[in-house]
Amino acid sequence: MTTPNDPGAALCAFAAALRFEDLPPAVVARTEELFLDWAACALAARGLHPVPHFEAFARTMGPADGRAQILVSRRRSSAYFAAWVNAASSHLVEQDDLHNSSVLHPATVVFPAALAAAQDTGASGAELIAAAVAGYEAGIRIGEFLGRSHYRIFHTTATVGTLAAAVAAGRVLGLTPVQMVNALGSAGTQAAGLWEFLRDAADSKQLHTAHAAASGLAAAYLARGGVTGARRILDGAQGLAAGMSADADAAHLTDRLGSRWALLETSFKFHASCRHTHPAADALLAVLQRERLAHADVASVVTRVHQGAIDVLGAVGVPATVHQAKFSMGTVLGLIAVHGKAGLEEFRDFALTDPAVVAFRGKVRMVLDPEVDAAYPRRWLGRVEVTTHAGAVFHGAIDEPKGDPGNTLARAEIEDKAHRLARFSGAADEAEIAALIGRAWNLHDAASVAALL
Amino acid sequence: MTTPNDPGAALCAFAAALRFEDLPPAVVARTEELFLDWAACALAARGLHPVPHFEAFARTMGPADGRAQILVSRRRSSAYFAAWVNAASSHLVEQDDLHNSSVLHPATVVFPAALAAAQDTGASGAELIAAAVAGYEAGIRIGEFLGRSHYRIFHTTATVGTLAAAVAAGRVLGLTPVQMVNALGSAGTQAAGLWEFLRDAADSKQLHTAHAAASGLAAAYLARGGVTGARRILDGAQGLAAGMSADADAAHLTDRLGSRWALLETSFKFHASCRHTHPAADALLAVLQRERLAHADVASVVTRVHQGAIDVLGAVGVPATVHQAKFSMGTVLGLIAVHGKAGLEEFRDFALTDPAVVAFRGKVRMVLDPEVDAAYPRRWLGRVEVTTHAGAVFHGAIDEPKGDPGNTLARAEIEDKAHRLARFSGAADEAEIAALIGRAWNLHDAASVAALL
Repeated sequence: MTTPNDPGAALCAFAAALRFEDLPPAVVARTEELFLDWAACALAARGLHPVPHFEAFARTMGPADGRAQILVSRRRSSAYFAAWVNAASSHLVEQDDLHNSSVLHPATVVFPAALAAAQDTGASGAELIAAAVAGYEAGIRIGEFLGRSHYRIFHTTATVGTLAAAVAAGRVLGLTPVQMVNALGSAGTQAAGLWEFLRDAADSKQLHTAHAAASGLAAAYLARGGVTGARRILDGAQGLAAGMSADADAAHLTDRLGSRWALLETSFKFHASCRHTHPAADALLAVLQRERLAHADVASVVTRVHQGAIDVLGAVGVPATVHQAKFSMGTVLGLIAVHGKAGLEEFRDFALTDPAVVAFRGKVRMVLDPEVDAAYPRRWLGRVEVTTHAGAVFHGAIDEPKGDPGNTLARAEIEDKAHRLARFSGAADEAEIAALIGRAWNLHDAASVAALL
Repeated sequence: MTTPNDPGAALCAFAAALRFEDLPPAVVARTEELFLDWAACALAARGLHPVPHFEAFARTMGPADGRAQILVSRRRSSAYFAAWVNAASSHLVEQDDLHNSSVLHPATVVFPAALAAAQDTGASGAELIAAAVAGYEAGIRIGEFLGRSHYRIFHTTATVGTLAAAVAAGRVLGLTPVQMVNALGSAGTQAAGLWEFLRDAADSKQLHTAHAAASGLAAAYLARGGVTGARRILDGAQGLAAGMSADADAAHLTDRLGSRWALLETSFKFHASCRHTHPAADALLAVLQRERLAHADVASVVTRVHQGAIDVLGAVGVPATVHQAKFSMGTVLGLIAVHGKAGLEEFRDFALTDPAVVAFRGKVRMVLDPEVDAAYPRRWLGRVEVTTHAGAVFHGAIDEPKGDPGNTLARAEIEDKAHRLARFSGAADEAEIAALIGRAWNLHDAASVAALL
């Protein structure tokens, strides 16, 4: 199984054997933080298009009850449909976490699958944590393996998310290493998700995560039952990399397993927009504050970015929806310049209609920067040049956007963000969020995760 | 919508508008034949690994009852899970239909989605037929569009099947042209399926069709509800062809819509093996009969094949399972030489263990033939050179394998095949199959398709 020539099998063996007791305390604590952040992201989407359509589909096609909870409605269903709806919900408001070098949003695919499987099987909080870590460690390495060429066309969170979800659910189910390989094979051959939707402000981003979490969970359950999958789904001659990457590097798959905890490299999102906009947003904010400039003083902004930002954000011209506006560099910088922040309320109230934001949007231009591009995806550098109407040019540079591991959110900030997210949709009241926070901070001690809300 | 520059929209407009009254009688009759052939293929898989695992997953994750029927068990479930299990079942025994130039198995993805949606909504037989034709016409053209480079890595029935299923289910649901574009977008961004599994005799071929039919059906239901998808999922800059094909040709997408009925070009399978083996099987049988040779007379067989056959069958060495043996050129020719046919019983009883078949397998070699390769995939030519122990060399050539449109099965042969398939698994008795045949031949008149078995 774990020959040096089969890195996928080695990764599966690591994930299948990972125990809560193996995890450093910092990894456990960060997993609890990521879990709370994820649950709050799901709650924030209650009632927002297209989430009610996903809830309706689950009601129509799934069972009327079950052991797994759908967070936005608090209804219960089978693990499959709970994972499906929770994954769709948690990827809508663009506040869920991101891992830089894999360009993967791990939480929105890993936690729906892990939580649904844990509730389905009566697993403990410690087991849920170990499963989530397995999903993060595997998913992040697979994302790094598939590389930048993959992300140019494919939404990595959708494709790799299917495998990460399978590993997480598979760990909850206690799969053997061989079964884990089968789960990975069945997940990889269902991996899908194209960026094309973004151009049209279509609803596929939520379908992507729903599909990934549910298909990955299905792969794990099928593997437990005895369904087999390709042994070399990652690096085989007709596997994922052969079909969907031009720069795959298998060395990533087993990179320091057990000593590097990739989960700790995951960033929390501060702004409620695509992560590709955050470095520029932080850099612009720094310039405006430092130079005491108002948005009306600004004649133009050039943001120097990596190619990945152009590949994704370049598809968006005039945003048609609030969700698409989260992928509009000009809109994000406009909210920052005019309103000082780009949170959920600012997007809802100002992104599409505020004349000052719309005007600022037209002043912003993205330019590929070789230095920024060379650092990416390991580091997401923010570089802006602000030219004023008076003719002055100011430069802004930040090397770690707020929320990055080196500039992370404190627990108090994460709690505050959770309250804000739940308040935004009204999916839970202050007391309920306080209780959820308490559960998250004690997740490692919880005998059961059946009652989340 | 239907500008000349948007062939996907034109295809969707055609599919959304297609009415039963538009169909030539020959298309209606052939659809009924393909439907019966498909249902019999599903029944033949009852009890065979991995179908019971798919049934179990549907029971665990789906509702306990519903309007759509799972053929192997006759249980009812939601449309989603009925499509899922029926698609898995109907692609196991390798007797389901194939369209040559798209290298797509349309029935196993189109009928599960169309039937489940039809039973769910109370549609008539005529509506089911129109929906199936829409799925065939769209799926075949999308398969031709993605081309040979796609099929080299991706199992076209899995990837394109997702879109074909969405179109078929979407037609049942009466989607508008705009909704059909959305369904196609949501389906295309879930399209997945890699050939890697075949190397290991893994169970992914059935997972592929299950995933395609169910995800396609989901895309159609979501579109009806108001979920949007990418407008240019086929040919957009970050669409299917951009990510998964190197030789896509958009002209195929709208090729003679409404005058060319691609469904009529679909082949029935006579041998119970991968279609890539059929041309050689027929050519070998003709040589052996013409020259009155027994299998023991044969020293070696060279089959001159197209590259696609090598890409798929070349992954199989010594077959480990009956299913994998269906992708072993040597095994198929061995069954033909030793037992005179390669049906379900011959595979079950002789493919892996009969010493004569195993010995013959070792005598067979595939060689790429430029003429055969140039004709493919439009025509599947069979060319064999048989060398006897006495040193004689005999050539065999067939241009239309049995079951091809120019060498198709008569209704009596299709009926006989249906009886044989059902008898093989015992999923239905003679009287029940006779009744099913009667329903199929009168499908165009059926007010309801709720009661199939």
